[in-house]
This record gives sequence, C-alpha cells and structure tokens, in this order.
Amino acid sequence: MPVATALARLLGGLTPTTSSTVPLTEAAGRILATDLQAAVSLPPDDLSAMDGYAVRRSDCAPGAPLVRIGESAAGHPFSRAIQSGQTVRIFTGAIVPDGADAILLQEDADASGEEDGATVTPRETVGERQFIRPAGMDVTAGDIILKVGTRLSARAIALAISAGHTTACVWDRPRIGILSTGDELAVPGTPLQRGQIYSSNAAYLSQFVMLSGGIPVDLGTAADRPGAVLDHIRKADSPLDLIVTTGGASVGTHDHIAADLAGEITSAADNNGNDGDARMDFWKIAMRPGKPLIHGYVDKIPLLGLPGNPVSSAVCAMVFLRPALAKLSGHDDQPVTIAARLLGNLPKNDKRQDYLRATLTYDENGMAEIRPFPRQDSSMIGVFAAANALVVRPPFDASLHEGDMVQAMPLDPRL
Amino acid sequence: MPVATALARLLGGLTPTTSSTVPLTEAAGRILATDLQAAVSLPPDDLSAMDGYAVRRSDCAPGAPLVRIGESAAGHPFSRAIQSGQTVRIFTGAIVPDGADAILLQEDADASGEEDGATVTPRETVGERQFIRPAGMDVTAGDIILKVGTRLSARAIALAISAGHTTACVWDRPRIGILSTGDELAVPGTPLQRGQIYSSNAAYLSQFVMLSGGIPVDLGTAADRPGAVLDHIRKADSPLDLIVTTGGASVGTHDHIAADLAGEITSAADNNGNDGDARMDFWKIAMRPGKPLIHGYVDKIPLLGLPGNPVSSAVCAMVFLRPALAKLSGHDDQPVTIAARLLGNLPKNDKRQDYLRATLTYDENGMAEIRPFPRQDSSMIGVFAAANALVVRPPFDASLHEGDMVQAMPLDPRL
Repeated sequence: MPVATALARLLGGLTPTTSSTVPLTEAAGRILATDLQAAVSLPPDDLSAMDGYAVRRSDCAPGAPLVRIGESAAGHPFSRAIQSGQTVRIFTGAIVPDGADAILLQEDADASGEEDGATVTPRETVGERQFIRPAGMDVTAGDIILKVGTRLSARAIALAISAGHTTACVWDRPRIGILSTGDELAVPGTPLQRGQIYSSNAAYLSQFVMLSGGIPVDLGTAADRPGAVLDHIRKADSPLDLIVTTGGASVGTHDHIAADLAGEITSAADNNGNDGDARMDFWKIAMRPGKPLIHGYVDKIPLLGLPGNPVSSAVCAMVFLRPALAKLSGHDDQPVTIAARLLGNLPKNDKRQDYLRATLTYDENGMAEIRPFPRQDSSMIGVFAAANALVVRPPFDASLHEGDMVQAMPLDPRL
Repeated sequence: MPVATALARLLGGLTPTTSSTVPLTEAAGRILATDLQAAVSLPPDDLSAMDGYAVRRSDCAPGAPLVRIGESAAGHPFSRAIQSGQTVRIFTGAIVPDGADAILLQEDADASGEEDGATVTPRETVGERQFIRPAGMDVTAGDIILKVGTRLSARAIALAISAGHTTACVWDRPRIGILSTGDELAVPGTPLQRGQIYSSNAAYLSQFVMLSGGIPVDLGTAADRPGAVLDHIRKADSPLDLIVTTGGASVGTHDHIAADLAGEITSAADNNGNDGDARMDFWKIAMRPGKPLIHGYVDKIPLLGLPGNPVSSAVCAMVFLRPALAKLSGHDDQPVTIAARLLGNLPKNDKRQDYLRATLTYDENGMAEIRPFPRQDSSMIGVFAAANALVVRPPFDASLHEGDMVQAMPLDPRL
C-alpha cells in the first residue's frame, strides 16, 4: 500500500471529540475549536502613528503659526476638539483629538515651548490623514480574527488578547496510549542482561506526543506472546483516542500484533467481557524504513502499529502519527517537503518510498542542500539523532547524482 | 547601528551560568552543559538484522542440509556455539550465536519444521557477515554521542536512553524579566477606557520566553515617568539573567528608558541602596520595524529594550531575544534565512534593514515562494499573526519584481 493511501485511511478514522475553554496564557499550541471574533477594533480609535502635532489639514501651512491648546499622550487623551488655528501636541499611540485630521511630524514644526499656549509653526504641509492609524485599520470588532482549526502560536495569542479575549475554546488534547513490545527491552537505569537493549521507543514517542500537542498514556511493555498486546490495551483504565504500539509488527514467529488484530484470539477476549472487536485495517506499507506498519482497531479505538527499530518507528511517527495527532486535535498538519540540491550520489530506488536520514543546510545564497548519511540502517539511532531532515524518494526513482534536485522533509528540531 | 553589530554586542555580554542534572524524560528542549558519552555500545552485541538462520558461511551451500539446534530470539539468546553442519533459527534483533558468521534469510531456506532437529536446506549462499549488525555499528561505548551545547530533541533523548543514560547535565533555564511600559495599557479582562489598548506584548513575550527555553518573570507595567522602569526592575525579588522591556524606547517626551539608562537618575537610585549602575550600551538600530531598540545594563543585568508596537516588539524578539535566550542557555541559535521567489513587487529600500511580514509557501516542486502582505504598519498584529515568514531586505536594496529571489526568515510556527 502506498504511503499516501495508508495515511488517508488512517486519518479517515480520526476526529476531535471534546473541547474546553482555557485561559489564553495557557493555550500555546492548542487548536481553536471555534472561530474567534474580535471583541474590540484594533486600533480602537484613530491613533497617531508618530510624535508630533495633531492639526487641521486646512490650517497647516508653512510659516502659519498655530496655538498649542493641550496634549494627547498614549493613555491620556485630549478631551476637547481642535478649532481652527489650534493644535495639540501628540505622541505615538495617542488618540487623535476631534477636529484634527492629520499629524504634523515634530521635526517639521518649530515650537516656542512645550507648554500650552506655545506657538507651533509648521515647516511643511501635511497629507490627507497623514500619520493617522484609523480605528479598525488592523481588525474591526466582529471580524473573525482566528479560524477554527488554527494552532495558537504566541502571535495568535497576542492577537486574541489585543482583540479583547482572555480565554479561547480549544479542542481537548488527544490521549495517546503508547505500548512497547519486545522481550529484549530493558528498563533504562537497570543493568543490561545479555541480549537486552534499553527501551527508547516508548520514551521517544512519549516526548513526540507531548511536543505534538497530545497526552501520552504509558501502557507499559507487552511480552512477545499472542494476545499480550490486547491484554495490555484492555487493562488501560483511561479512555484513549489512539493506541500506538512499537515492535511485534513484522512477520516473524515472535511478532503477534497482526495476528492479534486479525481476530485469531478475540474470542478469548470476549470471555473477559470485552466486545472482542479487534480488527486489522491494513498492514505493510511501500516505504523504507517502516514497511511493517499496521493499522487497525481494538474495541473501536484506532491502533497504529509502528515497527520496533527506533528509526523506523520514529520515521513512521513523523509520516503517520504527527498528522494523526493533528487530525485528532482538529488541525491539518501534513509534513512539508522542499526542493534541495543533492550532495553526493544515490543509487536507483526500488518499489518502496524511501526516507533517507540526511543533513539539510543552506548555502550562502539561502539555497537548500542536502547530504544523506552514508549508512541508513534503520537501527542506527545515532545517525538519526544527528540528522535534521529526510530525503524522500518516490518508488522506482532513478539513480541520482550530486547537484540533482530532491525532495527533503525537514525534521521538527524538537522531535 | 547595523543589525549584525547590535546582535554581536548583545550576545557578547551573555553567558550561561549554572547547570543541573535532570531526568532525560523531562529534558526535552534543554541544552547539554557537558558532552554525553555512550555508556553501552549500540548494538551491544552482533545482532541479526533479519528473520532467518544463523549459519557458518563456509557451511552454507545450496542443497547442503544443516541441522537446527536451537533458536535465538530478541531477548532470548542461544547460549551455545554453532558447530559445522549446524544452524540456529534467528529473529530480527537477536544475538548472533558464537560460531555463526552470517544470516541466511528464511525465504532462502527450506526447513523441514520449526522444531530443533529439523533440517534446514539453504537455497542460496550467504555473503560475508550478511545481515549481521556488528556490535558498536551505530555507537561504541565511550563515544561522545551528544556534544555540549546540543539542544535535546526527542531523538537525542532516545539516543541517550539507548546508550545507557537516564539523566543529563543541562544548563539551567535563563530567567527573563519582562516589563511593559505605557499608560495606555489595560489589563486583559477589564473594560477598555477611552485611549486604552489591551496589553499583549507582555503575554507575547512570556510565551516567547517559555517556548524558547527560558523562564519568564513578570515585572508588571511601569508608568510613563522618569525612573519608573528602574524602580520596577529593582523591586524584582528574584535573580534575573536578562531584562526585556517593551515600549518607552523612542525619543518622545513620554519615553524614558533611554534617559533612565543614560544615568540621569541613578543618583536617586543610590539613595535606595543600589549601586546605581545603570548604563546604555547602544540605542537605535538600522532596521524596520524596530528602530528604537535599546541595549544596556541595570545593576549589571543586561537589558534589552524593545519597541512598544506589538509587531516591532515581536520582530525584535525574533532577531535579538531568540539568539540571546539561546546564548544564555549555552546554545547557538541564529535565525536562518532561505532563498524564496518573490510574489508581487517591492519598492527600493532605504537605509534600514527591512523585515516584511509575508506568507511563505512551497510550489508543487518544493520551491519556496513568498508574498509580503500589502500593509506593513508595525501596529498591525492581525497581519503579523497571519504571517509565517519575514522577507529580510538589506539596506538600500533595489526595487524588486515578481520572480526575483529574496531572503526569507521562516517564523517559528509556535511563536
């Protein structure tokens, strides 16, 4: 199954469920569950964009003195109106007084002093509504300022606060169960026995889920025996929006997830009072690394079965889990690929879509260049940690040479 | 002062101070304060990369039967050695038994059964050490796997765990005091009085600091009067690594930060028992937005004075505060600019480096395209929230036309 087909099948079964109203100061990274309308206009009034003098344009002529009758500063508006022959000292961000229709720059005027009653003599004329930021120039009260599905950046939060909000209605974070499988996995911090390796996939995925806006739920490590995965999932005492497993997804005698999902042991599950609804949706993807990816359902909860090799697991997380988390959060977040000049050579590709660990840099002109690591074994987490991008090669891609353009998927530097 | 000079002056005064050992599971985004060496090799032993049979290469000939004497599965090693004429069933990730020097793929063998004593007849020869991942292929115990100054991504954390660590020594997060100035600022959630606007800069900078690895310390809002900024800073009861102010940085009668720093009121500060060490380092940068940027020191704490306009403040945060936070955290993080094709036209630039709010997209070939927003007023936070990149134009840049290449600074989607 091609990657795009598999991703569409996975995303098709996912939808956000519940939403909550949260303070904007705690809403960074959350996804809006409703459109947000401006409660106030930005700016709320006509404001001066510069320091100078608020004038009537028809009065403002070089050499024609005006009388200063007051001051308008940010937060300290001038409350009366300007009449002919009058001016008001004004500062950036202050309300333009009634009667004034332009701002004369302070460097374009000669003032006899900084007190009311002083004479202010323009040296220039002013343009129509010069240096006035009209009320609503940026946003008008009632405008939709942020659409449903927007991920709240710090900028978006600042906009919402400026427009009069203190809270926002956001989709609840999806709860993602993370289950490792493999009798070879040792708990970090314990001595390694012969044949063991430290379990890093669960820790990786836990960070991945947190940094992608989800709530990781640790489902532990299942032994390499039939039914163990289903048993672990069904012991989870909190509701889950998605289950992610690592390992056990291949065709080996000790890989049981596919058989578990295919229903061979669901009758046993029935005896435990479950509805026994475990089923496979698809298995095996035309990609490298990540071929044994599994998708199915356990008791109607979608399950994404990632390979056990750390790099395969992480690449599949980037290609499948990241958009899945976004979809469950009410957001669309497909990985972007960009054109980059290949440094080095690559042999022709086979029938699988290839994701090569690589270093993406920009030359002195800002053009993207990418160098794949010479060793691509999917167990090599050292190489993966050093990479900052993947070269994405379509199936049957021809051999490539230094200088050819390729598609690069930058890795989120946090992931 | 050019942007690059100002940035170098700012960064020159900053250095990380203290470090702590933290659990890796809580270390995402933190910066290593020491090199991290592998405690174990990866893989720790010679492992099989495939499901199949562990063989002696010299024994493995098409049609020449071998006797299966056991099994090696991940986490369940075979403890004896293979002699001539023998083979061991092996699975991905399992230790290659002593005596074996290659893996025969299961699809390249005919086995009479899955029990010990079964006959396994190769259909192919095997290459030297075929499908064996040698011990230390990825990482050798003692190797430096992550260098001092590395920001810990989820991948780096997974590598550190795999290599035998549960904790890491990281630089402590810098504490950043955030102080707003401006009599026009209303507290979000209270009704706006005439002439007021909601204060969003402090909330923006607080998110910015948190998402960039610092600890924001709220110093409140200082009134527009001489000395108010110093008073607020000196009332802070926790140690600060950097003070960031917004507003009050211009030349207006109501902008007091420059005068405060220039020492005009430090004798008054002396009376309060402080050392009165407030000084200016530089003021006014050849950039737009952001011209009135200030750098100085208050009682030896570096101060970065950002403009009051929300967009100016945020752009200066991206250009100056972000690298400053990184430097204080022991990391180097200068913004990257990339080449992009201009959509639309731009007039020639003046003597200031220009940062235009823009939309960066990638065409169907993965080539970057960028379209500046038509209105660039530095008060327009709605436009800024909608932008995902800045066009960076050097001083005196010639007029540009659709299709010209420009430099684009992608905005961190979280900021």
